[in-house]
Amino acid sequence: MDYGKIFEDAISRLHAEGRYRVFIDILRNKGAFPNARCFAGHNGPKPVTVWCSNDYLAMGQHPKVIAAMEEALHDVGAGSGGTRNIGGNTHYHVELEHELASLHGKQGALLFTSGYVSNEATLSTLAKILPGCIVFSDELNHASMIAGIRNSGCEKRVFRHNDLVHLEELLAAEDPDAPKLIAFESVYSMDGDVAPIAEICDLADKYNALTYLDEVHAVGMYGEHGGGISERDAVAHRLTIIEGTLGKAFGVMGGYIAADQTIIDVIRSYAPGFIFTTSLSPVLVAGALASVKHLKGSQEERDGQQARAARLKTLLADAGIPIMETLTHIVPVMVGDPVKAKKISDILLTEYGVYVQPINYPTVPRGTERLRFTPGPMHDDAMMVELRDALVEIWSRLEIRRAA
Amino acid sequence: MDYGKIFEDAISRLHAEGRYRVFIDILRNKGAFPNARCFAGHNGPKPVTVWCSNDYLAMGQHPKVIAAMEEALHDVGAGSGGTRNIGGNTHYHVELEHELASLHGKQGALLFTSGYVSNEATLSTLAKILPGCIVFSDELNHASMIAGIRNSGCEKRVFRHNDLVHLEELLAAEDPDAPKLIAFESVYSMDGDVAPIAEICDLADKYNALTYLDEVHAVGMYGEHGGGISERDAVAHRLTIIEGTLGKAFGVMGGYIAADQTIIDVIRSYAPGFIFTTSLSPVLVAGALASVKHLKGSQEERDGQQARAARLKTLLADAGIPIMETLTHIVPVMVGDPVKAKKISDILLTEYGVYVQPINYPTVPRGTERLRFTPGPMHDDAMMVELRDALVEIWSRLEIRRAA
Ligand SMILES: Cc1ncc(COP(=O)(O)O)c(C=O)c1O
Ligand SMILES: Cc1ncc(COP(=O)(O)O)c(C=O)c1O
Repeated sequence: MDYGKIFEDAISRLHAEGRYRVFIDILRNKGAFPNARCFAGHNGPKPVTVWCSNDYLAMGQHPKVIAAMEEALHDVGAGSGGTRNIGGNTHYHVELEHELASLHGKQGALLFTSGYVSNEATLSTLAKILPGCIVFSDELNHASMIAGIRNSGCEKRVFRHNDLVHLEELLAAEDPDAPKLIAFESVYSMDGDVAPIAEICDLADKYNALTYLDEVHAVGMYGEHGGGISERDAVAHRLTIIEGTLGKAFGVMGGYIAADQTIIDVIRSYAPGFIFTTSLSPVLVAGALASVKHLKGSQEERDGQQARAARLKTLLADAGIPIMETLTHIVPVMVGDPVKAKKISDILLTEYGVYVQPINYPTVPRGTERLRFTPGPMHDDAMMVELRDALVEIWSRLEIRRAA
Repeated sequence: MDYGKIFEDAISRLHAEGRYRVFIDILRNKGAFPNARCFAGHNGPKPVTVWCSNDYLAMGQHPKVIAAMEEALHDVGAGSGGTRNIGGNTHYHVELEHELASLHGKQGALLFTSGYVSNEATLSTLAKILPGCIVFSDELNHASMIAGIRNSGCEKRVFRHNDLVHLEELLAAEDPDAPKLIAFESVYSMDGDVAPIAEICDLADKYNALTYLDEVHAVGMYGEHGGGISERDAVAHRLTIIEGTLGKAFGVMGGYIAADQTIIDVIRSYAPGFIFTTSLSPVLVAGALASVKHLKGSQEERDGQQARAARLKTLLADAGIPIMETLTHIVPVMVGDPVKAKKISDILLTEYGVYVQPINYPTVPRGTERLRFTPGPMHDDAMMVELRDALVEIWSRLEIRRAA
């Protein structure tokens, strides 16, 4: 048994496929984001513009968020010191859960250390509590939902992405008395498209299925109060469970679910990923609370973000850069090759001070490798023109095909 | 299919067994910890003394930690804004990983959002990468290790707690050429006992097995630099992987592993629980970095904590309170009944302002329900005498048997 060789082979495979990941080492400049300092190459910090952050609304530097975190830091200290049950349940946690329940019009909410953990812990526990449960999962669901479903050990049927006909076919094929759960996302973050939530709820009603909606890329971003696509489409009340993150549009870190009180109580009482871990630092919870509250009342960040995304799409499309059509804030540019995607990203960083990661397998299917730009309200016109010109130059240099 | 009924039944079972968990809602008073405010009963905040925190050394309020977090908050903002690979790799993360690698004398380290996630993600990925791997797991291993082993789908053999003879029996029974991994903890936090690490490493050498040691309750606490029991016993170099948390003795939040560079690279490249989640907030990372660095150089907190734990053990033992003998900083008091454990905890909180949670199944085996006190360097003699007197009174009131 040569362990070293097995581990080295695992790494060699990644190099051979051109998808070995190199982390770019940066520090954001609070107050000047998307500007940041980059430490790559260790020639000392040099300035870059960040084009791939999920802090979509720049709430990570909002004065209200910073002030709330500073206050909590000085009032209660750095960490919670325990699990939610043993010493780690602070008044901030309780308040934020109330706020999130109200954001989604649900009876209760439950915090987790991340969106990943909220998906994994909730789905694995839910499907285990329902004997014989069958989960219907969109084929493009996020890795954390896939992990939760797999770890539940229950039956799983995968339906083609956003395909209602296929979903109904699969639902109709099962025993009407078997417990069923449909798990899907609202905004799919790598393609930027949106699920037909109302129609999926119709199918859930027809076949007596529960629904689980991941709104990670939509909370804070859509709906009059930032309640996500389910608020925008006025369907939140039809969903069994809505899941979100505090680490993207809300700018901090953490995850949550919102649902009926009984379901919240079941997950709270049975999910190992919730029970057996130090709870979120009260500093983070205080920041998230300020962020959620602010975005409930303010439309400005959402409007700004949508306007900037529209502007970037026009600029790139007009220049023949092959952007993928989306109805959302995400601007993916298809490359279709992991080595080229990495090459473009490297040139952008070293020659243009533009930071955007290549998105390779397993984050997206092989052959659909891409760059994924996330313009925010702080990306101004000058930055966008610079980005467009850089892409045009690199597209010619590497002889990549332009859009029609 | 009546979903509501199934969920309600799941909750009723907990009530019937007396182990439905009620979270006590508190806010710690930074600078005055273990003092805190309690919101239970919603009669406004009232003062309590916290006796069940895992912020063992009160580092969550250490001035260096608070200052580092404040600085990061103002320098880079609230959250990281992305996964480690896509925008969320800050210079703080890189520095802390260097610091943790050096703490354990390993080539590299890798941060996770929690200790739970570090165990789940590493064990499930490692055992999957090694075809036909068999994991040998101590029967008292933490839920997060159990989850990781189960989710890997590999073969598992459970050995009796700290039982070298049983472990060897199980190792000897398997094909010598099969990959093997022994997973165990150093300090078992609910009993307070310690694993025979050197002897387990001897067995690993003899049977060509990898070793995975959870030092969650020992990092910061033992060893000349806070490297844990593996540093104290001078065996760190013999372990394949050492895992720890930033949320207990280090006082903040997050988890990590330390190991050879190749293993770190494998987990970094293949573990979904590491890859697909927003990275730790740089604010937390900055705080943890300050905490780890401080405890590398300062013995004062460790000495203070050990002295206070010894003092509490003596006080309680002399009064006939049935403490479980331990060689560590943890002071468990056996009750053996979930309803009584909860009752004692309720009386302590409402009548004495003493906050300690009952520890019930599934955290400990049924029939071994207990109270678990974690005295820290800030618990003074007056608090200890108060606690002892309260316990003596409650023990007579509820007619619980005293120790011999
Ligand atoms: C759809 C989706 N769900 C869940 C997550 C996990 O959320 P978090 O980053 O808070 O762990 C992500 C991304 O990270 C995601 O894209
Ligand atoms: C032995 C052990 N390992 C891991 C963990 C998880 O660490 P964290 O709280 O950082 O998730 C805990 C407790 O929470 C623990 O007791």
